Order: sequence, then C-alpha cells, then structure tokens
Amino acid sequence: MYSSFLNLIDILGTFAFAVAGGFSAMERKLDPFGVLIIAFVTAIGGGTVRDVLVGNFPVNWLHNGNTILIIFVSAILTMIFGSYLKHLNTALFIFDALGLGLFTIIGIEVGLKQGFSAGICIALGTISACFGGVIRDVLLNKVPLIFRKEIYALACIIGGIAYYLLKQTHLNDDVAKVICILMIFVIRFIAVRYNLSLPQIQLK
Amino acid sequence: MYSSFLNLIDILGTFAFAVAGGFSAMERKLDPFGVLIIAFVTAIGGGTVRDVLVGNFPVNWLHNGNTILIIFVSAILTMIFGSYLKHLNTALFIFDALGLGLFTIIGIEVGLKQGFSAGICIALGTISACFGGVIRDVLLNKVPLIFRKEIYALACIIGGIAYYLLKQTHLNDDVAKVICILMIFVIRFIAVRYNLSLPQIQLK
Amino acid sequence: MYSSFLNLIDILGTFAFAVAGGFSAMERKLDPFGVLIIAFVTAIGGGTVRDVLVGNFPVNWLHNGNTILIIFVSAILTMIFGSYLKHLNTALFIFDALGLGLFTIIGIEVGLKQGFSAGICIALGTISACFGGVIRDVLLNKVPLIFRKEIYALACIIGGIAYYLLKQTHLNDDVAKVICILMIFVIRFIAVRYNLSLPQIQLK
Repeated sequence: MYSSFLNLIDILGTFAFAVAGGFSAMERKLDPFGVLIIAFVTAIGGGTVRDVLVGNFPVNWLHNGNTILIIFVSAILTMIFGSYLKHLNTALFIFDALGLGLFTIIGIEVGLKQGFSAGICIALGTISACFGGVIRDVLLNKVPLIFRKEIYALACIIGGIAYYLLKQTHLNDDVAKVICILMIFVIRFIAVRYNLSLPQIQLK
Repeated sequence: MYSSFLNLIDILGTFAFAVAGGFSAMERKLDPFGVLIIAFVTAIGGGTVRDVLVGNFPVNWLHNGNTILIIFVSAILTMIFGSYLKHLNTALFIFDALGLGLFTIIGIEVGLKQGFSAGICIALGTISACFGGVIRDVLLNKVPLIFRKEIYALACIIGGIAYYLLKQTHLNDDVAKVICILMIFVIRFIAVRYNLSLPQIQLK
Repeated sequence: MYSSFLNLIDILGTFAFAVAGGFSAMERKLDPFGVLIIAFVTAIGGGTVRDVLVGNFPVNWLHNGNTILIIFVSAILTMIFGSYLKHLNTALFIFDALGLGLFTIIGIEVGLKQGFSAGICIALGTISACFGGVIRDVLLNKVPLIFRKEIYALACIIGGIAYYLLKQTHLNDDVAKVICILMIFVIRFIAVRYNLSLPQIQLK
C-alpha cells in the first residue's frame, strides 16, 4: 500500500515539476522544443546532478522510460492546455510539494546506500529535490528562485533531517518515508500560505 | 572514402563551432582567455554533456589532442582574423550544418553502443550536437538560442530518427551516416534560407 | 614542514573562496540558503568540474568533511560579520591568491596521475582553480568575471606550466609546489596592484 502511494507521488511529482518548468519556459516565450527541454530539465535535473556527483552512471532517467514518458506528456499537455492548467494551481502546488518530499527521500537513500555521512545524505536529498529548478532558472537566465524566495530548500533540509533520524529508530521504512513527505508538504504549505521567506542578507 | 569524408566533416564542423563560439564571445567583449574558453565550450560542450550522462570517462576531448588543437587554432584565427572570417559567413554556415549532422550521429552511436532505446539514442545525438551552444549561451548570460529561434535541434531530431531507421535496414553504415548528415544539412539550409522557426508558445 | 604549509594554504584558500562567494551572493540579496550554496559552489565548483571530467567519483568534496566544515563556517561568518570581513580585504586577497596557486597544483596532480598530456594537466589545474568562480557567476546571472577582467586564469596557466617543467627536474616535489604557488601569488599581486588586464578582443 505504501509503495503504491510512493509510486503515485513519483508520477504526480514528476508531472508537477515538468508542468512548472513548461510554464516558466512559456513565460519566456520559448518555442516548443525549448518548452520541452525546460520541462525535462526541471523534472530530472536534480536527480541528474546527484547521480553525477556520486558517480551513478548512466544517470537515472536514461534508463527510466516511464519518467521520460510522463515528462513528455506533461510538456505537451502544458503547451496545449496551458491556460486551463493554470486553474489547477492548487492541485499543482500539492503535487509539487509531495514530489519535493519524495525526491528528497530518494536522494537521501542514494547517499545512504553509498555510506555517506548524515550531512552529505541530506545535502544529496536537497540537491535531488531542488536543483532541477536551479538549472531551469539558469537556462532561463534568472538568478535561481530558491536562492531568493520562499522556504523551499529549507523544507527539504528539515524533512531530510527528520527522515535520517527516523531511520535510526525501528520504525518501518515506508512509514518513515510517508511521515517525512507529509512533513515537507506541511512546511511548504505553511510557507506559501503565510508567505514566509528567509530574510535577505545584505552587506551593510 | 566515406571515412575520410567523415573525418573532414569532423574537422570542419569543430572549426565552425569554435569560430561561432569565438564570435559570440567577442560580441560580448570578452578577453582572449574568455574567447578561448567559449570557443572550446561551444565545440566540446555537447559531447561532454553526453559523455557525463552516460558515464564515459574521462570525457572524450581529454584524450583527443587533435580536437583540442583544432579548437585552439580556430580560436586564435577568430581573434586575429575575426572581421575577415565574417565574410566567410556562407562557408561557416555550411561547415556548421555538416558538423551538426556528424555530431548528432556520433551521439547516437554512443547511445547504441550502450544499448539505450531509440528515443534516448536520438536524445543523446541531439544533446551532442546542440548543447555546446546551450552552455555557451549560459556562460554569456543569454537564454539559449536553440530554445528560441530557428530550426536547429529539430533538424538533429529528424536526422537522428532517419539514421536510427536506416540502421534497421541492410544499408551500409557509412552510407547511412552520409545520408543523414546531408538530410540535417538540407533541413538547416531550408530553415535558414526561408527563415523558418517553430512558433512561440505563450500562455493566453 | 612543507606539507603543513600546504595544508594551511588549503584551509585559508577554501576560506577565501567561500567568503568571496558569500559576498557575491549577499550583493545580489540572496537569502541565507542562497548565500550558503554560492559559498559552497565557489569553493568546490572547480574541483567538482575537474573530477567529473576525468571521472573521479564520488567527487572529492563528498568525502571531505573538513572542506565542508570550513565552507560552512566561512559562509556563516560571512553572513554575520560581512561588513567587518570587508576590512580584511588585503588578507582575503592574499588567501585567495595562495588558494588559487594550490588548487591549480592539485588539479595538475590529478591529471598527471591519470597520465594526461602536459596541456590537459595544465587545463585541469586551471579548471580546478577557476571554475568555482565561473559557476558562481553563472548562478548569479553574470558573465563570468574571469572571462572579462583581470589576470586570473592566466596566472594559473603560467604557474601551471612552471610546475609541469619543475616536475621534469630532480627538484623535491614539495619545493616545486611552493615555488609555483608563490609564482601564481606574485602574478596575481602584480596584476591587481597595477590593475593589469588582458585587452578585450572586439570585432571590427
């Protein structure tokens, strides 16, 4: 049951990431090829950076036909139904926040499997979840959003620490995953609902 | 005969990519070191991304002294004879379009050797041919041209599909390569001659 | 004695790189997470690119807890004492220039160990020393400084060539390292003191 829940989140999260990427590309008036690439990069960029850093080759999405198919379909749907999808704002936010949680956990698991320390594992989780958006923003010629606004990466870091700690207990693994995904989800929800950001740091 | 034709295209294509990179760098008023790096990145960036994704290490150009030499010479020539080279516009376009075709095929071959599916192989071909320009544009702080203008990546994708299909027939391999290179060349020629682009996709 | 000197430079250089990254991030008004990431990327970006190109996985910093700690502390200090650190301008410049020298040499050693040619080794050294700053500038949406201003990469290239040549003699290895670090330091000092840059190259 848990595992089909995680599978569902994987699909919905990938969908939400790809759609968000597609929207950003369309705001910049890219052509369909550009929209497709940006949707791809947003959805698989974080996992790709993680795989490259730790040395998992070929990187994950190259042998994951399902992910590629979901992104492809999401990008096409975004191009055709863009204005309608905009009305699904809330649904997309929910999918995105759930995906954020799952991708953080996937990244942490990759780190644990290779025997890295706690700090590195949480960093790898955060990179998996957040760096697709970083590459998207770089390609669209913007300072990455997550360096400037909203509590996004911080949600991954907090959820990641919780997951790492829960793994030390005897709690069932799938339960730990679901708890952390919901935790990251709730942090994101509160951050967006109350418009919370980290303060800017400026040189005086 | 075919193989020396392919070698020639490799040299001319690398030259054209490096010169194009050098020009972009000079337009942005970089210093000679910057021009050299941008010329390099334009010529070897696509192959490097491909090698990293599939896990070919060290990446190709590190043990390919000829390529490095060609790029180096091209960058120097661009710096010295920039304004004269501009008059060779048509020749440079031809070299670029031929190189685009060859690099697409090289990327597809890397994918085939590793047993990837058709879609991935064609994606790897397109990445090999196009992502040098993407990295160049990112370094020069622009939204990558191929996401916005002209039919460039699409030529690689179409040529790549044709090459993949021809490989399933009993056609001689080198002949298949030459056919696809010419095909990509012709698509590029028509796109530039008639100023064809993909339509922009915008949110309504 | 030499080796503890090199260790000291490693620490001071990493500190200076991270602080420089933190300053750039704060100038762009990033939030604390952004400042931390930019400090990290500035300090470990060059070594990461080098490791990826040659195929050293996991990349170096992932199993180097000390480096991570130093960067973390440097970023925090920069955020808290930013305006005071600005007064240490000269000290930071010295650390940065020493770090530049050491990181160049570390990169060359990686290349030598893998049996690359002289040119590639020196390129790997320069990449190790300079590409953290390149990635930082890309993330902050600027054309990389080292492509436009000051003699920075050139100092690495000259020092790198000297180191490669010294390795061919019977000179003690640590002595050769110290000589080259000082050489790169002196070039940087002269370049900044007399405000020397490479000339821009422009299309006429």
